[in-house]
Amino acid sequence: MTILKRGTRRSVKTGMPPGAVVYVGEHKAASQRISLIHFNAADFREQEITDLPASIPFLADATTTWLNVDSLQNTETVTHIGNYLGLHPLLLEDLVNSAQRPKFEDYDAYLFFVLKMLTYDPDTHSVNAEQVSIVLGPNYVLSFQEGDTGDVFDSVRARLKAGNTRIRSSGADFLAYALIDSIVDQYFVVLEQFGDDFEALDEELVGDPSKETLNSIYQLKRQLITVRRSIWPLREVVNALERDNTPLLREEVHVYLRDLYDHTIQVIETVETMRDVVGGMLDIYLSSVSNRTNDIVKFLTIFGSIFIPLTFLAGVYGMNFHYMPELGIRWAYPAFWLITIATIVGLLYYFRRKRWI
Amino acid sequence: MTILKRGTRRSVKTGMPPGAVVYVGEHKAASQRISLIHFNAADFREQEITDLPASIPFLADATTTWLNVDSLQNTETVTHIGNYLGLHPLLLEDLVNSAQRPKFEDYDAYLFFVLKMLTYDPDTHSVNAEQVSIVLGPNYVLSFQEGDTGDVFDSVRARLKAGNTRIRSSGADFLAYALIDSIVDQYFVVLEQFGDDFEALDEELVGDPSKETLNSIYQLKRQLITVRRSIWPLREVVNALERDNTPLLREEVHVYLRDLYDHTIQVIETVETMRDVVGGMLDIYLSSVSNRTNDIVKFLTIFGSIFIPLTFLAGVYGMNFHYMPELGIRWAYPAFWLITIATIVGLLYYFRRKRWI
Amino acid sequence: MTILKRGTRRSVKTGMPPGAVVYVGEHKAASQRISLIHFNAADFREQEITDLPASIPFLADATTTWLNVDSLQNTETVTHIGNYLGLHPLLLEDLVNSAQRPKFEDYDAYLFFVLKMLTYDPDTHSVNAEQVSIVLGPNYVLSFQEGDTGDVFDSVRARLKAGNTRIRSSGADFLAYALIDSIVDQYFVVLEQFGDDFEALDEELVGDPSKETLNSIYQLKRQLITVRRSIWPLREVVNALERDNTPLLREEVHVYLRDLYDHTIQVIETVETMRDVVGGMLDIYLSSVSNRTNDIVKFLTIFGSIFIPLTFLAGVYGMNFHYMPELGIRWAYPAFWLITIATIVGLLYYFRRKRWI
Amino acid sequence: MTILKRGTRRSVKTGMPPGAVVYVGEHKAASQRISLIHFNAADFREQEITDLPASIPFLADATTTWLNVDSLQNTETVTHIGNYLGLHPLLLEDLVNSAQRPKFEDYDAYLFFVLKMLTYDPDTHSVNAEQVSIVLGPNYVLSFQEGDTGDVFDSVRARLKAGNTRIRSSGADFLAYALIDSIVDQYFVVLEQFGDDFEALDEELVGDPSKETLNSIYQLKRQLITVRRSIWPLREVVNALERDNTPLLREEVHVYLRDLYDHTIQVIETVETMRDVVGGMLDIYLSSVSNRTNDIVKFLTIFGSIFIPLTFLAGVYGMNFHYMPELGIRWAYPAFWLITIATIVGLLYYFRRKRWI
Amino acid sequence: MTILKRGTRRSVKTGMPPGAVVYVGEHKAASQRISLIHFNAADFREQEITDLPASIPFLADATTTWLNVDSLQNTETVTHIGNYLGLHPLLLEDLVNSAQRPKFEDYDAYLFFVLKMLTYDPDTHSVNAEQVSIVLGPNYVLSFQEGDTGDVFDSVRARLKAGNTRIRSSGADFLAYALIDSIVDQYFVVLEQFGDDFEALDEELVGDPSKETLNSIYQLKRQLITVRRSIWPLREVVNALERDNTPLLREEVHVYLRDLYDHTIQVIETVETMRDVVGGMLDIYLSSVSNRTNDIVKFLTIFGSIFIPLTFLAGVYGMNFHYMPELGIRWAYPAFWLITIATIVGLLYYFRRKRWI
Repeated sequence: MTILKRGTRRSVKTGMPPGAVVYVGEHKAASQRISLIHFNAADFREQEITDLPASIPFLADATTTWLNVDSLQNTETVTHIGNYLGLHPLLLEDLVNSAQRPKFEDYDAYLFFVLKMLTYDPDTHSVNAEQVSIVLGPNYVLSFQEGDTGDVFDSVRARLKAGNTRIRSSGADFLAYALIDSIVDQYFVVLEQFGDDFEALDEELVGDPSKETLNSIYQLKRQLITVRRSIWPLREVVNALERDNTPLLREEVHVYLRDLYDHTIQVIETVETMRDVVGGMLDIYLSSVSNRTNDIVKFLTIFGSIFIPLTFLAGVYGMNFHYMPELGIRWAYPAFWLITIATIVGLLYYFRRKRWI
Repeated sequence: MTILKRGTRRSVKTGMPPGAVVYVGEHKAASQRISLIHFNAADFREQEITDLPASIPFLADATTTWLNVDSLQNTETVTHIGNYLGLHPLLLEDLVNSAQRPKFEDYDAYLFFVLKMLTYDPDTHSVNAEQVSIVLGPNYVLSFQEGDTGDVFDSVRARLKAGNTRIRSSGADFLAYALIDSIVDQYFVVLEQFGDDFEALDEELVGDPSKETLNSIYQLKRQLITVRRSIWPLREVVNALERDNTPLLREEVHVYLRDLYDHTIQVIETVETMRDVVGGMLDIYLSSVSNRTNDIVKFLTIFGSIFIPLTFLAGVYGMNFHYMPELGIRWAYPAFWLITIATIVGLLYYFRRKRWI
Repeated sequence: MTILKRGTRRSVKTGMPPGAVVYVGEHKAASQRISLIHFNAADFREQEITDLPASIPFLADATTTWLNVDSLQNTETVTHIGNYLGLHPLLLEDLVNSAQRPKFEDYDAYLFFVLKMLTYDPDTHSVNAEQVSIVLGPNYVLSFQEGDTGDVFDSVRARLKAGNTRIRSSGADFLAYALIDSIVDQYFVVLEQFGDDFEALDEELVGDPSKETLNSIYQLKRQLITVRRSIWPLREVVNALERDNTPLLREEVHVYLRDLYDHTIQVIETVETMRDVVGGMLDIYLSSVSNRTNDIVKFLTIFGSIFIPLTFLAGVYGMNFHYMPELGIRWAYPAFWLITIATIVGLLYYFRRKRWI
Repeated sequence: MTILKRGTRRSVKTGMPPGAVVYVGEHKAASQRISLIHFNAADFREQEITDLPASIPFLADATTTWLNVDSLQNTETVTHIGNYLGLHPLLLEDLVNSAQRPKFEDYDAYLFFVLKMLTYDPDTHSVNAEQVSIVLGPNYVLSFQEGDTGDVFDSVRARLKAGNTRIRSSGADFLAYALIDSIVDQYFVVLEQFGDDFEALDEELVGDPSKETLNSIYQLKRQLITVRRSIWPLREVVNALERDNTPLLREEVHVYLRDLYDHTIQVIETVETMRDVVGGMLDIYLSSVSNRTNDIVKFLTIFGSIFIPLTFLAGVYGMNFHYMPELGIRWAYPAFWLITIATIVGLLYYFRRKRWI
Repeated sequence: MTILKRGTRRSVKTGMPPGAVVYVGEHKAASQRISLIHFNAADFREQEITDLPASIPFLADATTTWLNVDSLQNTETVTHIGNYLGLHPLLLEDLVNSAQRPKFEDYDAYLFFVLKMLTYDPDTHSVNAEQVSIVLGPNYVLSFQEGDTGDVFDSVRARLKAGNTRIRSSGADFLAYALIDSIVDQYFVVLEQFGDDFEALDEELVGDPSKETLNSIYQLKRQLITVRRSIWPLREVVNALERDNTPLLREEVHVYLRDLYDHTIQVIETVETMRDVVGGMLDIYLSSVSNRTNDIVKFLTIFGSIFIPLTFLAGVYGMNFHYMPELGIRWAYPAFWLITIATIVGLLYYFRRKRWI
């Protein structure tokens, strides 16, 4: 139940002063990778960074700069960048704490976003959440990813490289929007994969639900709790962003934010619908089990009710009383069979009339 | 479970820039049909369009123009119209994306509505949702339908053709209202058909619920989730529309919007009531199954409790011990039957007193 | 399940223009009855109307006029009155559409209320809702009743006739309030009758619930859904009325509206409490059925566990093996009975210790 | 189910004009008692009143006056006081109608409170609610109690008599606060007594729940519904009171009102927690019954599965076929017992491995 | 069920005037300990206090003072401090009443907080709540702890002692924030320990749930109710604190309060998620029990259905009728076995086809 521990793994920080930059999370990423992209409508440069101090004086640059950091276990990088740009200590603390819930904060000089990037593992039918923090300044965007196993920003990079695209000629705010939009778009992919799990479960349910079906429903419900936790706060994030009148977001970006808001609502609604459906599945499962117990008991009852009285009758004529006049009667044995058959037919008729068979 | 996939089929667009006009949906409509209606109080012209570019310069026209497009798979038409009228790229993207939730957006120069047109298929007892987008400009209304299998606007067309009707002498805003009203009116029809399914289920439930009843309840619940998803956001759509003080909606149309709002609330309430009732049905079904198991077990218990001890007794006198004094007694066998009958009568009396029979 | 069809019977109107005055409802009232009351502090006149056009020029009159129409199937009357007083077409449409939910609308020149009048049928233990629409103008009140089977306004008529009452000396607004108050007062009567059904059910539940109990609970739940639908919107109706600053409602009437609001809340709370209680009843019923199954199975288990092993033992000594030394032992048969009795006593003791008996 | 009738017993008033002062309630109090207390910082007088008209001209008095009326069946007293002080007819109507929900109304010249005084009857484990209405004027407090069986104001009386207390030197507003505070304090006592019932039920549940346990849970749930109905509206009462800027409440009383509000929230939260816990109890009860059925069926299954096949085997060798070679074999009988024992041991081992025993 | 009594143990105060300083709680702490810390950026003094009156004149001091009181049974200390600093009587009353819910109150001259300090007892798997009240004045912080068994402020003390830390150079407001932050941080630790209980329960559930599992779920649910009660009101506490524009909280502390708010939301969400998960666990448990009953009944049915008819057959040929022709046939006995085996195989095949085995 990683979701519960994830939220509480924070305890390593208990007793530390606020603003302490300590990595809190589960990702054991070995190598940190820092990439830097400078671009404007005319120009585009991309570089992998090894010597951080020499590379970051980009503030004075006439281009827009996107600095992406993969893996946060080496908190020195974060501290260094933070100090250079004058970021608030609490922001830095949040950056490296993967137990954050999605949020948006306006620090006047820059905006700060925490988001969850979801990926679906088809083998375990489970969802993994990776924290992505984005800092939007006047002419730069910083993105910090908890893991080093790739991201959902490849299409953004491609559009940047392509040139002659809207994203190249727009500024840092549009880039930040594009990154967030990529993350939200990925939610649709994850939910679609969930949808396949739903369909499989659905067929099992209507067909022949087993104990594994119950476990699958249980797991699905749990997964949805994780997903919901990652996505739900997004509503207020995007909403707060839309209403925020910071100069860092130009007017023409707002219409895109409204679109983003629509997508967010759509994702949240889909998750809510899924929760609804999973709840219904459990009811159906319980009803199915009840129905099956019913069938089984019915079977036993039919066999029992027919043969228990007959066995008694057979037992009677197996008694050894000296004086049992029926025993000597010639047609007694055929009569016994007649009674037997009549009883069976009668009870079967009765059961059929009761709709048991 | 199309509802879940429908919401997520969007994934084909992942990685594309915002504003990309790509059809997202399930309708495999073969042929696109475009019809154009020009009208004012005095005049009415209707035409089927094949050569789009030549036909659309209607902006300068003194009449009100209604352009209706069936089937959106050929996105060129949409792009062409959009460019001519200067529609926002995000609007065009939404137009051809059938995974939109109902919404209303005010783009100043025009208003944009996304709605779901519902139809009920009596064979599969299921509801199909088709997306209809409406753009209302100063003197034109555009409507875009996802499918090509007809719509609910025939009565509007008839009233337009008839002349001397309110709709002919009113402008584009009243036409847009009339279209939306037609869509909402259709919801009542769909819900009424659902009502018939409810009644059938109800009789099954009170009578003799089978496993199929459970599946029907389950399907009904699912259908209601789809319907709710299509209808629920309408509340805020119509509400936002009513409060919006755009010059595109004249004062006299507002009273009609209030009426529309009432209808919307009525539809939503009916859906909520249905959900309530379906929830109750499941409870009743579960209780019924429990009751039936109870009946079956009772039957077995009655037979078993009566004959199991008697069979034991018969077994006793079937034993072959050499020294069993009762066997030689003449009245022993009649006494055995007496005991048997007394036991049966006694237990039946006991069961009756316990209200088991 | 009339509630669901009631909400959807509207479909006959699909395709008609907004404002079409077409009766929608279930009441097949044969004869329309129109009564007119003129009154002021000094004067009181009452008349049954047959020739409508001649009777309605009451606007200029110095008295307050109350026009009551029973049965709405003849929509001509409604249209005639509407045209004379200049009522909005949408209002007239709502008047004759019994699928309206309770609402309040301020048309500046007059106020419009739609309410549900409830009656309880003790034979079928069901509630019938009849729509009553009230139009309040400067010096007149119009009331339109869907059915012709009497109403709850008799006490208002009596007070009007009595003279020297507050209602005689107050204007149209107080009369309208009195009518609405009568309708709300009737809710208390209906709920009290429901209360008796609750008590009966309650005794059945605690005593010996049968399958009919389940059906009664189910029916009660359904009835409450109808009642709730009729009453719930009243809260916002009265609330909107209280906040509305129309000149049609004098200051001194507002304190009565506050009182009306209190009653409305009280009614709604009672309905909510009843829903709560019905929900609890279903839980108790389910628990009772489980308990009973438990009892039945216990009975079978006790009989079975005791006699099945003993029957086996009897069977053993009924075997015909040539070499069975016990058969010849003189005390073997008494020993068999000893074992039998010991087993029975032992198992009974065991069951008692387990609290099964 | 008095709660439901209580809310609806109002029906005796149907058809009466608003403002009719008619007692609605269940208290059949025989004797009305009226007591009058005059006090200021220096002075304290208490008197039992028999001749009402002579006693009430206290308005001009320089002291604060507290008039308390027990039992409201004689509505004359109420009318008399009301007329003397000019109280609104609707207020008087509410006073004698015990079906009121708790409320607060500001009539400018005086404030009006309706509250419920709860008492717990340990014999029937039930809660009784008695309506207390309080009118706060500039220099007087009126309190009207539905019953005549004592109240919770004794400590207030004691503090008044004591002299040198805050309550003596403060005015009517503080007295009204003190009365309300006493009523809310009593809720804690009632809830504590409920808490004991909870603990008893809890032990039953974890130990050995019987059918009586179910009934107790059911009764407790019902009681909580009553309590909630009495307490819940208090939140808005105290809240409205705190926000009301009437001159009748001096500034220094407001901090006490905030304290009162805290207590109210605390009481409401406790009730909500109790409801939560009762809901959980029902789940646990159901699970317990299921568990027990499980145990019982398991017992039967173990006995049945072991002895049914063995009985068959014994039956086989009890058959009278002439040609059954085994019968003559000398070790056949011991072999039969060997098979019997092996079967028993084998099945027991199987059951243990399945964790059934 | 301490939670319910805790909320109601207040009853000892019934009848006392508001502002009475009486200890209400369960902590039987023997010895009261008072410690005093004076600090500013340069200086740090700590002392254990025995003679209270001599020690508290710290108001005029140029340092910030933190006075901590452990154990509140000796209410004299509280009264003494309260009088010296002029604290409101109601505040003092709340201080010593451990039944308070978390709250924040602004008394202009000082701020007052009530919080719950949680600790988890791993032996009983239960949570204990201890009330901590904090008073923040211009240059002092008072903290009152209900118990004397240590607290969560050691890290704050360490940072104060360390010198050169942010907390040393900041004023009383930052100290108060640090104390509250420590309490909230502790919640994460407690929830993490709960998380371990969840995982253990989870494994039991998926594996082999017993009756103890049900009790554990029940206990866990109860514990979560306690935790929720302690934590839930914190949201509004911190929120009110953030919005409060008292001069006692400097601007630079507000960003820390926002951070505190985030943590609070995170804790609350985790608790809500846990409640969700516990609710799901109960469903799964119920399904598991149903499944198991199903398995057991199936086992019995299989044995019963096979051997009951066969036993009847054996019984038939054990009958002693004189005329039973089959008995003399030589192949009759082998035929009997053939029939037996065929029946067994046939039924087993049937059961397998039905997926029962």
